[in-house]
Amino acid sequence: MTDLILNESIGHVARLTLNSPENFNALSMAMITELSATFDRIAQDRQIRVVILRGAGRAFCAGHDLKEMQAARQAPDAGAAHFNTLFTACAEMMQRITSLPQPVIAEAHGIATAAGCQLVATCDMGVAAEGTRFGVNGIDIGLFCTTPMVALTRAIPPKAAFEMLTTGAFIEAQRACELGLINRVVPGAELSEATLALAQTVAAKLPAAIALGKQAFHQQRGLDLAEAYRLASVEMCENALWSDTAEGTAAFLEKRRPLWQAPR
Amino acid sequence: MTDLILNESIGHVARLTLNSPENFNALSMAMITELSATFDRIAQDRQIRVVILRGAGRAFCAGHDLKEMQAARQAPDAGAAHFNTLFTACAEMMQRITSLPQPVIAEAHGIATAAGCQLVATCDMGVAAEGTRFGVNGIDIGLFCTTPMVALTRAIPPKAAFEMLTTGAFIEAQRACELGLINRVVPGAELSEATLALAQTVAAKLPAAIALGKQAFHQQRGLDLAEAYRLASVEMCENALWSDTAEGTAAFLEKRRPLWQAPR
Amino acid sequence: MTDLILNESIGHVARLTLNSPENFNALSMAMITELSATFDRIAQDRQIRVVILRGAGRAFCAGHDLKEMQAARQAPDAGAAHFNTLFTACAEMMQRITSLPQPVIAEAHGIATAAGCQLVATCDMGVAAEGTRFGVNGIDIGLFCTTPMVALTRAIPPKAAFEMLTTGAFIEAQRACELGLINRVVPGAELSEATLALAQTVAAKLPAAIALGKQAFHQQRGLDLAEAYRLASVEMCENALWSDTAEGTAAFLEKRRPLWQAPR
Repeated sequence: MTDLILNESIGHVARLTLNSPENFNALSMAMITELSATFDRIAQDRQIRVVILRGAGRAFCAGHDLKEMQAARQAPDAGAAHFNTLFTACAEMMQRITSLPQPVIAEAHGIATAAGCQLVATCDMGVAAEGTRFGVNGIDIGLFCTTPMVALTRAIPPKAAFEMLTTGAFIEAQRACELGLINRVVPGAELSEATLALAQTVAAKLPAAIALGKQAFHQQRGLDLAEAYRLASVEMCENALWSDTAEGTAAFLEKRRPLWQAPR
Repeated sequence: MTDLILNESIGHVARLTLNSPENFNALSMAMITELSATFDRIAQDRQIRVVILRGAGRAFCAGHDLKEMQAARQAPDAGAAHFNTLFTACAEMMQRITSLPQPVIAEAHGIATAAGCQLVATCDMGVAAEGTRFGVNGIDIGLFCTTPMVALTRAIPPKAAFEMLTTGAFIEAQRACELGLINRVVPGAELSEATLALAQTVAAKLPAAIALGKQAFHQQRGLDLAEAYRLASVEMCENALWSDTAEGTAAFLEKRRPLWQAPR
Repeated sequence: MTDLILNESIGHVARLTLNSPENFNALSMAMITELSATFDRIAQDRQIRVVILRGAGRAFCAGHDLKEMQAARQAPDAGAAHFNTLFTACAEMMQRITSLPQPVIAEAHGIATAAGCQLVATCDMGVAAEGTRFGVNGIDIGLFCTTPMVALTRAIPPKAAFEMLTTGAFIEAQRACELGLINRVVPGAELSEATLALAQTVAAKLPAAIALGKQAFHQQRGLDLAEAYRLASVEMCENALWSDTAEGTAAFLEKRRPLWQAPR
């Protein structure tokens, strides 16, 4: 175990730190594998209600490990099998974030580029330190950020995404916030605290309702209106019948705090 | 008849006022039924070209009637049948707004929460008084705003929607406008006038073109580009052949006002 | 040949100028035909890496040629065949912009209305002079901008689009930029230079990667997440195997400029 990922529990919040600062927390094959395994464990852990994802050192994440990719080109197939495994594993890891029952919040600082920018776009919410720079700049080495684009175009408006992808230009945190890539920008000194505060706000809600809601959020995206409402109505009815929800409603009407049994 | 909904005609504008101020115009089963019936009547009324939806008292609408929901839990099925009827009827009412031939404008003040926020998101356009607060805060009682989410995620960017849904936090009118939930914010004293002005601007257009356009607007959403253009081209040709459109074009070229026969 | 479209090559950038200033560069049948033919030629031209689209005279483009449309009404079918041909050809021309391997940048000034606004919305990116006005104001003559809507609703948030379509109101460049209809606003005197600079930035990238990326950008839109990632991963693997991409990666790691063989 190389401690590629540090995992702290702060109350019901799991704070994961990408811990490979020497290569700006590159998404090497090992890092992707470790992240996927970590998400799989968290998915089963009823104690964890919210996940924070951040990076050690000077950057959040600078994307794939280019040295590793270059080394793979020495293989007889010029790296074909490696690239296929790498990009497939990376896309599956990203989708684990979406399918994880718990919300995942990106805590970004320094730079978040290529697959690192994709990580931010993929997380359910994001907080960034002032001055953080975001880019999908693979185009500068002749490798269009096609997989990062999938997440980016689902987070920000199309013309802004197209510009980032084809110019490789970076945007700063404030602009990222205006575009919808992240939820808020805070001074660097307040980054951990602000992200944790957001996480704890969500962690204080009824976990089963958050899990049901997150799943429905992603499921109904892209469905036509009637279909989306059909799905949502079913979930709404189920949720309304929970005893914790009955208690939550009673508490609200009686102007008191709910007494939840919680874990479902 | 309890006058749950007040219905004024101002020229070709129908102004509907949710009139249950004692519970912040809650979307009780009765209110939903009455709203649906009102929309069904308006759909047939050729005199009405635009609809304004607003609330009496201190709020636009605070969502479902929690007391009514709690009472339903006393049934042997713990409310299952009631919730199913309620959420289905509510989603159908919302979809009536989308399928109504006439544009519907939300005139929001005070608060618009849960299904009340969904109403605003569902309307074709929205105007709000400064200080109006919007939230999908069902999560605070353990009931994720799953059906409101369907409308909300089709109006504002995903990360902002996710935050509202999982934190229950309110946003103010100015922020709602930046996110695209509403079209404009005005001082409270000018709310009725500003909304009516917007409604009358639309009501002065050729009603059949507005109806055709609104229907196509919602139909083509989510279709792939070629499919959307196929549908739109057919509508465009039909519209172009109308005698009122020929007259409108002639009037423009002759720099005069069109003389429309109108109602189709 | 009437020089309806001027075509300059500036390095690897093709700059097209709609050249019918007397009718504000109207998208007449002839102009649409000429534009489509021009795009078809550019699609085959390996020397061209980026396209700029602008208008001669006082406006970018004022939409369809209303005089031509009125003349068509004199036919026995009241123009039905003409309108069908016109709107189908126009929608096909717009889709050529999307399917063109090279990115297309709108350089807008003066006004961009109806199908002229659609042109801007359709281009991959847009730059506008301060004071440029955008509108989908067909509704003012009784002709809802149904086909322009297809492009507009894929570029800006729905409530803003609905307002533009049903009120016919114009928005200024700064608002268009906030909504995502264009990428940047510059003083009129700097418009050509700024647009060309953006074009040249993109033209300096590896052309095959830009072409692959643009195609994938449009293909994956609207697909569900798993499907989009499947498509993107395949493209990413292919791109990674190119020798120019291997060289680009090596150059980056060696902190030097890449030596690309380019044209694929």
